[in-house]
Amino acid sequence: MSAIAISLGDPAGIGPEITAKAWDARDKHRLAPFFAVGDPRSVEAVWRGTVVRITDPGEARVAFRVGLPVLAIEDAGEIIPGRPDLEGARCSLDALEVAAGIARSGAASALVTGPVSKAQLYAVGFRHPGQTEFVAERCGVSTENAVMLLAGPSLKVVPITTHVALRSVADLLSIDLIVQKSLATARGLRRNFGIARPRLAFAGFNPHAGENGALGREEIDLLIPAIEILRAQGVDVIGPLAADTMFHKRARAHYDVAMCLYHDQALIPLKTLHFDEGVNMTLGLPFVRTSPDHGTAFDIAGNDSAEPGAMIAAIRMATSAAKHRTAA
Amino acid sequence: MSAIAISLGDPAGIGPEITAKAWDARDKHRLAPFFAVGDPRSVEAVWRGTVVRITDPGEARVAFRVGLPVLAIEDAGEIIPGRPDLEGARCSLDALEVAAGIARSGAASALVTGPVSKAQLYAVGFRHPGQTEFVAERCGVSTENAVMLLAGPSLKVVPITTHVALRSVADLLSIDLIVQKSLATARGLRRNFGIARPRLAFAGFNPHAGENGALGREEIDLLIPAIEILRAQGVDVIGPLAADTMFHKRARAHYDVAMCLYHDQALIPLKTLHFDEGVNMTLGLPFVRTSPDHGTAFDIAGNDSAEPGAMIAAIRMATSAAKHRTAA
Repeated sequence: MSAIAISLGDPAGIGPEITAKAWDARDKHRLAPFFAVGDPRSVEAVWRGTVVRITDPGEARVAFRVGLPVLAIEDAGEIIPGRPDLEGARCSLDALEVAAGIARSGAASALVTGPVSKAQLYAVGFRHPGQTEFVAERCGVSTENAVMLLAGPSLKVVPITTHVALRSVADLLSIDLIVQKSLATARGLRRNFGIARPRLAFAGFNPHAGENGALGREEIDLLIPAIEILRAQGVDVIGPLAADTMFHKRARAHYDVAMCLYHDQALIPLKTLHFDEGVNMTLGLPFVRTSPDHGTAFDIAGNDSAEPGAMIAAIRMATSAAKHRTAA
Repeated sequence: MSAIAISLGDPAGIGPEITAKAWDARDKHRLAPFFAVGDPRSVEAVWRGTVVRITDPGEARVAFRVGLPVLAIEDAGEIIPGRPDLEGARCSLDALEVAAGIARSGAASALVTGPVSKAQLYAVGFRHPGQTEFVAERCGVSTENAVMLLAGPSLKVVPITTHVALRSVADLLSIDLIVQKSLATARGLRRNFGIARPRLAFAGFNPHAGENGALGREEIDLLIPAIEILRAQGVDVIGPLAADTMFHKRARAHYDVAMCLYHDQALIPLKTLHFDEGVNMTLGLPFVRTSPDHGTAFDIAGNDSAEPGAMIAAIRMATSAAKHRTAA
């Protein structure tokens, strides 16, 4: 299996530090070989280990034995950890584009993306809601078929809508959107996790899943029809369940993924349980893409206090998913 | 301190069983004396221990040494665990009314309410959303000033709106409602938990707390103005915080109560963390009222499998709160 490509994210954020710390922890966590894509100076500014500059992904496996391989994108300007600027944002975007292209070509077995600053990216003309949508578009995958899966050790969740005002969620939901995202999720769990018959559990939109319409009609008008369509297509679905009683330990044993209708419904339980180890995986792409589920943390960048746990989890999940795809 | 009154809830639900099991566990959990209010036959149908019929709350402390004291409301008709009927619903309502009256008179130090069936209660003409509102009305407390607090060992939450369709929440919220509920919460934490200066943390309404208006305006239009009013009145408030990152262990150390804007925002983290030990406490009443945070569980009533953990937690929290009130 070829090495995993990691785009370093914003050079002034914690991406370079957690990537380097993941290399430090490679034996402990038995990490498959990986290489960084970004400005090597952003790593050297925050880490004393050995950086090995490479010019081709094929060199990564050998270089990984002696240091952190970095495929250089050297246009970040002056790098000061914790002080993001527009040159750094452009560098993070270039790194993402190069790393995604390598993954798409097959020269890397998977893509892991480090944290970027959306505010900085928007300032340099980035027009996508986030890295997920950018990568999906570069792969020609529509947004209905690109699914954001958030995963921790004991819970996987999919938010069917993501970064939109809560007030507008009800009007954005449709039977078709729910069905498309669910089919893409079921496919993704088979391909990336080797779950032959994924069990999807739907969260209700309203309190107590609407109590038969007394507390809202989205269950009756959208969820139940969508579930019937999915069952007719052979998908294993339960719900709609009361969202508050479906995330405790015993309840989680009954499904492989919780299908949620809005951002916080999915992210609250995931981050309550797995704050330091959440991984974001995009399902529906032609290659494996994961990302640590946290931001650039500019406030702590450069003081050697960033925890690499989520990056390590993202690398491990990418490796496992790449193996499942190869085996399939 | 006088004994605690426990209304048994629906006689066909698990209320009688978990109350009796709490008596069994009185020494292990060092429970203060309590007595049940309801039909003694509903206890005898599911428990082999000693039931002591009492006719006055003053007899409860002595009776508690030999068995479960029950102040009899004998109008439940035939009792079959797991088979609710209208006579049972009327009995549960009578028991609630009697027990609340006893607590209000001071003859009981607190009220713990067992689970009722809302569907059955509505069928016998009950016109309140739940027991909380019924008790508040009986005490002449307005709904803005009666606050539902859900508490587990490591988290307390207040849902500012409760059993309403999610789509309608944004329009139900107002600066005044948020301020009134918050002041009642701060008072309640002082009186019932002895927290001299309660720290309130506000959850944002939108993903990432709205990202300065980019993902919704409720933070700017409602929460930030409400927080300013509360701070001007000396309340210790933080927020609005991104709701997904405020409930993990380290984040919970920064506040005493999470003020949430809708049912599932409060209940998802609480029940994810503390499914078997959640207690519902009503703040703002002239007496202490708690309740186990679960329903009647008709499906398991009568087969001796109901867990009394939440009832025990409700009794313990009621006892502690009653002591704080006496000490204040």
